[in-house]
Amino acid sequence: MPDTQQGMRRRNLARVMHAVSAEGPLSRAAVASRIGLTRAAVSTLVDELIRSGLLEELGPERPGRVGRPGSALAVSGRGPAGIGAEIGVDHLAVCAVDLRGRTRAQVVRYGANRGRAPEPVIAELSSLVREVVAEAESEGLWPAGLAVAVPGLVARDARTVVRAPNLDWHDTDLGALLPEDFPLTVGNEANFGALAELWLGDGTPHDFLHVSAEIGIGAALVVDGQLLRGTRGFAGELGHVPVRPDGPRCPCGGRGCLEQYAGEEAVLRAAGLEQGEDRVGLLAQHAADGDEDVRDALREAGEALGIALTGAVNLLDPEGVVLGGALAGLAPWLLPSLRDELARRTAGQACPVSVSRLGSQGPLLGAAHSVVRAVLDDPSVVGERA
Amino acid sequence: MPDTQQGMRRRNLARVMHAVSAEGPLSRAAVASRIGLTRAAVSTLVDELIRSGLLEELGPERPGRVGRPGSALAVSGRGPAGIGAEIGVDHLAVCAVDLRGRTRAQVVRYGANRGRAPEPVIAELSSLVREVVAEAESEGLWPAGLAVAVPGLVARDARTVVRAPNLDWHDTDLGALLPEDFPLTVGNEANFGALAELWLGDGTPHDFLHVSAEIGIGAALVVDGQLLRGTRGFAGELGHVPVRPDGPRCPCGGRGCLEQYAGEEAVLRAAGLEQGEDRVGLLAQHAADGDEDVRDALREAGEALGIALTGAVNLLDPEGVVLGGALAGLAPWLLPSLRDELARRTAGQACPVSVSRLGSQGPLLGAAHSVVRAVLDDPSVVGERA
Repeated sequence: MPDTQQGMRRRNLARVMHAVSAEGPLSRAAVASRIGLTRAAVSTLVDELIRSGLLEELGPERPGRVGRPGSALAVSGRGPAGIGAEIGVDHLAVCAVDLRGRTRAQVVRYGANRGRAPEPVIAELSSLVREVVAEAESEGLWPAGLAVAVPGLVARDARTVVRAPNLDWHDTDLGALLPEDFPLTVGNEANFGALAELWLGDGTPHDFLHVSAEIGIGAALVVDGQLLRGTRGFAGELGHVPVRPDGPRCPCGGRGCLEQYAGEEAVLRAAGLEQGEDRVGLLAQHAADGDEDVRDALREAGEALGIALTGAVNLLDPEGVVLGGALAGLAPWLLPSLRDELARRTAGQACPVSVSRLGSQGPLLGAAHSVVRAVLDDPSVVGERA
Repeated sequence: MPDTQQGMRRRNLARVMHAVSAEGPLSRAAVASRIGLTRAAVSTLVDELIRSGLLEELGPERPGRVGRPGSALAVSGRGPAGIGAEIGVDHLAVCAVDLRGRTRAQVVRYGANRGRAPEPVIAELSSLVREVVAEAESEGLWPAGLAVAVPGLVARDARTVVRAPNLDWHDTDLGALLPEDFPLTVGNEANFGALAELWLGDGTPHDFLHVSAEIGIGAALVVDGQLLRGTRGFAGELGHVPVRPDGPRCPCGGRGCLEQYAGEEAVLRAAGLEQGEDRVGLLAQHAADGDEDVRDALREAGEALGIALTGAVNLLDPEGVVLGGALAGLAPWLLPSLRDELARRTAGQACPVSVSRLGSQGPLLGAAHSVVRAVLDDPSVVGERA
């Protein structure tokens, strides 16, 4: 693509949106000084963004300042919204987030999805999406897109679930099953969880490894504020990093993979507990009650995580590691042995390990915010639609 | 930085250079159609590049075509050159590469650098640099910059060698020791080797893991045509990925790191050979002669590489793995067990493993070409200098 006036205008629209989003309300003059363009150029861009419903004027700034009062600009609390959805092993969830980043509607439905065919699950999810969209529309919002988080590998077409072993889905084109009323993006839940951490986390670095778990163990790499997706979109398979190369066989074909030591099923087995629906809650409850078998099992899972993360940290040199998803709830019992192992093996250069504040909400929020971010990053897409 | 006319002009100068570099000689009209700008706009850009000495006119195109003959443009074979240098454990090398990518001068000096203080090594390297620069200048070239490949971790300032265990250098600021006649970049040898593979390799993918070895084992990740450097610039430490977590102690503080199984010293020890100067040549000679102890040692090193690479492939999902540097020379004996291990552990999704054609020349060429690429990517820097 040639670098043209048109391309420059699109990038500058994004710069205005990001400035107002990060620091607003701001006057036109303040935006101009933030992004280094003339006030006249900014005014043209702002007028276009107001016409598209992405910015709104709050009226004249408070008096008492020098010069003619400017009108403060804010990101619109009406207009486009991001719709996020999550297909979990034990639940479905949908939410709507406005351009200001506020969650404006949310529904969750519990119930096992493992082993169900994709069609009825997606039909149920679609009805939840309609419910959330209707609620958002009643508040003056309209859906700019739908992003769906799934516990599995997603092809780079961002539609096809290549493999979701814990749902037992293979090569499932969600694009064919979901309504086509607005743009669709399907992504791995660990990836969306990592994006949520990047965008919403407190002081999260821009280069980090986000580790999460539901039944499997997934990870996502954020490098310089961008997800590293891999050639096929499969990057982040921390669960299949070999921890003990002669260890137990793994369904992936390998031996001694991390999931054989730190996956939920392995931990439940080591702790002598039954498989059930709220597996993480069960483990956390027993550990909090002082059950030594459960604590030992979690300590050993932490060790295995520490060994696998030593490899990942050596390869990637991230600024930090964040434990999210189900792992966040088990962190008090995983972290001590995980940190010990990592510190011992990376002599004095230990990478800091923190726990996500977002916990199991991360993937859903990451999905919805990814739609919002796409609008902020290229407001002209919405302008052309509106 | 605001997105301005000036920024657009710089990017378009780069687009012209890359078009002529990749497909030249080209007429102005052909460049315009390649990059999607008007012929008038391209002419202005081309005139500027000719004045800076980056492009040259080859004279009118051959007659017989329709319309007024255009003058074909080519990347200049005079003008700026990239100077590359390599500090190896057993050698020093310097070369000059012109904008057309041809090596125009090269010197190599063999001799152990292990345990020598940085000052005399850099003094020797500087005299080799002067020699190569003088030779390049006699052909009408002038040095646009110097890039130095070192076998160790380099800080993000691209001057300071934080740790080069096999030279026994620590926190050494090469910027203070080298002549300041032109811009300096210091980088890890595995990183420069990977860039050489990216730019000069035959059909090398744009997402790959490049594994090389001198005494240690290093790797470099190229993602979408860009090096992944890590937060501190230390990414790619494949040599310290745990292979057997209870294995032998490693000087890094860990246990059972890859280097304990596949580093040159470990392989020599396992093969019952003495440490010497041309360690790789010695191993290759014995293996070629059918020495079973050496072949077993290399087979086991290949297995360990396969285990460590399984983790890396699961985390990064690269399009391929390339063995370069010293490993390229040992590939016939490493590859079978390496590929077996990787294939078995990544069931049916095995990532292709290939061997670099550049071998031990990679880091030096990568360094010199990185200077050339910097000029192609932002020709205005040279324009302002000239």
